[in-house]
Amino acid sequence: MQNFNFSNPVKIIFGRDAISKIGPEAAKAGKKALLVYGGGSIKKNGVYAAVTKTLADSGIAVVEHPGVKPNPVIAHVREGVKKAKAENCTLIVAAGGGSVIDTGKAIAAGANYDGDTWDFFCGKAAVRTALPLFTALTLPATGSEMNSGCVVTNEETKQKYAAGGPALFPRVSVLDPAATLTLPARQAGYGAVDALAHIIEGYFTAQDADNIVTDEIVHALARSIIASTRRILKDPEDYDARASMMWSATLALNGLPVCGYGEIQFINHAIEHALSAIYDIAHGAGLAIVMPAWFKHHLRTAGPARLEKFGAAVFGAGGAQEAITAFETFFKEAGAPVRLSEAAIPAADIPRIAENAMGLIRLWSLPHQQREIEEILARAV
Amino acid sequence: MQNFNFSNPVKIIFGRDAISKIGPEAAKAGKKALLVYGGGSIKKNGVYAAVTKTLADSGIAVVEHPGVKPNPVIAHVREGVKKAKAENCTLIVAAGGGSVIDTGKAIAAGANYDGDTWDFFCGKAAVRTALPLFTALTLPATGSEMNSGCVVTNEETKQKYAAGGPALFPRVSVLDPAATLTLPARQAGYGAVDALAHIIEGYFTAQDADNIVTDEIVHALARSIIASTRRILKDPEDYDARASMMWSATLALNGLPVCGYGEIQFINHAIEHALSAIYDIAHGAGLAIVMPAWFKHHLRTAGPARLEKFGAAVFGAGGAQEAITAFETFFKEAGAPVRLSEAAIPAADIPRIAENAMGLIRLWSLPHQQREIEEILARAV
Repeated sequence: MQNFNFSNPVKIIFGRDAISKIGPEAAKAGKKALLVYGGGSIKKNGVYAAVTKTLADSGIAVVEHPGVKPNPVIAHVREGVKKAKAENCTLIVAAGGGSVIDTGKAIAAGANYDGDTWDFFCGKAAVRTALPLFTALTLPATGSEMNSGCVVTNEETKQKYAAGGPALFPRVSVLDPAATLTLPARQAGYGAVDALAHIIEGYFTAQDADNIVTDEIVHALARSIIASTRRILKDPEDYDARASMMWSATLALNGLPVCGYGEIQFINHAIEHALSAIYDIAHGAGLAIVMPAWFKHHLRTAGPARLEKFGAAVFGAGGAQEAITAFETFFKEAGAPVRLSEAAIPAADIPRIAENAMGLIRLWSLPHQQREIEEILARAV
Repeated sequence: MQNFNFSNPVKIIFGRDAISKIGPEAAKAGKKALLVYGGGSIKKNGVYAAVTKTLADSGIAVVEHPGVKPNPVIAHVREGVKKAKAENCTLIVAAGGGSVIDTGKAIAAGANYDGDTWDFFCGKAAVRTALPLFTALTLPATGSEMNSGCVVTNEETKQKYAAGGPALFPRVSVLDPAATLTLPARQAGYGAVDALAHIIEGYFTAQDADNIVTDEIVHALARSIIASTRRILKDPEDYDARASMMWSATLALNGLPVCGYGEIQFINHAIEHALSAIYDIAHGAGLAIVMPAWFKHHLRTAGPARLEKFGAAVFGAGGAQEAITAFETFFKEAGAPVRLSEAAIPAADIPRIAENAMGLIRLWSLPHQQREIEEILARAV
């Protein structure tokens, strides 16, 4: 096991009516909030009403910044930063899924910074301070509610890049599984793929795989994500399955499932970010396409040991190939494409995708050349 | 799944040479530390030298408070409180196992309080503030390094009671598995029993057992504790097994393995505390005696479902009885007694033990009568 630090200060309030607790918590940080949300689904499922009520009850004035879209964009972040500065907001409340929370984080960082917020994403500046952030999660997937990272796309440069730093941990995140009961099957499925993707990156690129405890935790979360999703797809109103899925996805990227693995590589994410940056496809869909191809590459370059171990523990699979097939089977059950063609992405685009991915690969210092990325993508045709 | 809050602000620094990091961290909190430790084993294994060096290098003056014994006592805590107040210590550094860290917490609370520190344990006062606490762990078992509770014995009243509160979370805990390489097999074994005991209390007394994710996490930690211990007993110098055991025991009582179970009952601990309070036996030994008896009681009163599920997932057991046997087998492997007689405790003492346990049972509002505790203990003869 490699040395590690673990520190996660986020306070989680989980369960029915959790949303009503965000007002009193936010009031400890300030009296004027920028309320960030998406396309309005929170107005249909009651989350908007619950959030604005608790903020009003707690004496917090609200400036709205709606309109976050999936694969959130820096232009919209910049508008939010401008608004937060102009209105002297002293805290951010983000109500939605990972895109909304990531936008909230980017605005929280940008509001305390004189330069362009994109500086944090392209490596020009580090996030030193941020406005306090409070989140109400509506879509289990990215884990952003309990970590200090965020991902935003620059539409002009076609870059989907990440920023982060301890200042971006939410102060409090409220997670009400009931808010996810109306999530369509497709979104629930993509969320499950995303959560699984987060735990496999560390597991399969660990510098040190003699790590009984973290391996067991990864297996546990994977089994939970898969079992919960299967129950949700069968009965979308299964509260306990929604709850297990929600907490699993949060834990999947809160730092716990990588403890002791050493330096790990988010290579599947680096490749997927190119897909969503260019084609604006759902992150979960892109990951379901990339992962099987990358597993095949991993099997050839790193051998079968990790696939065998994960496959046996999570899928009851009898070998590495069977493990890859089991992943694909689950992704299909979850309603996700598993080949580029299923997302209408032509094989001829592979060099362009690989070239785009190289941006992140270089930024993250991953040990890959463009030719290797093209080889991986060729397995996804 | 029941509603829950999760918040754990402890910063963990884990791995080789982690101890050298405690000085710079502690220096953020103050310049004069009360250094709490035990019977001197840390002087043999290099931990004392490493802690005092990093504290000195960071400009922190040290007042020593050695002599913590297993089942730490309030008299020794009171001496520490007196010393911390007299010397104007502004922080506590605890270097040792759970007894040392618990003593450090009790002193940290007492140093900021005008009354008697036992008030926090018998329910007379709540811990509102405490001196900042830093810990260097040497014995994986109690999880005290990442939670906000502590257990101390009052020798006069024969009460082994607990206190806690958010102020008692350590600021930073440093965990170096290398510091555990010289731990005797018996202590490693008792530590494993204790860590297992922490996760079974919630699992078997959950108000709501439809909780895929937390069940999976409990299974994962149990498997890790058992597998790590078996490797350690075979090769005490197996660093990676020591590391997995250390992190597993920390996670076993940091709040994670109970999320969503609702109100849980530490009934095995309540009974065991009576054993150590009266006979001063090791906590792990007492738990290994109580748990099989309690499982048999649980099987009769609550049915086989949870034992079957846990047994299948952790031991590959084919039923509830087989699961209980597998627990006993592991406790024996770990070198622990599994019957009162093996610890030279006469069956005739059962009423007295049960009467003592009722103190905590009433304080914790557990739904048990003395007759029931006597019945459980009768299964441990």
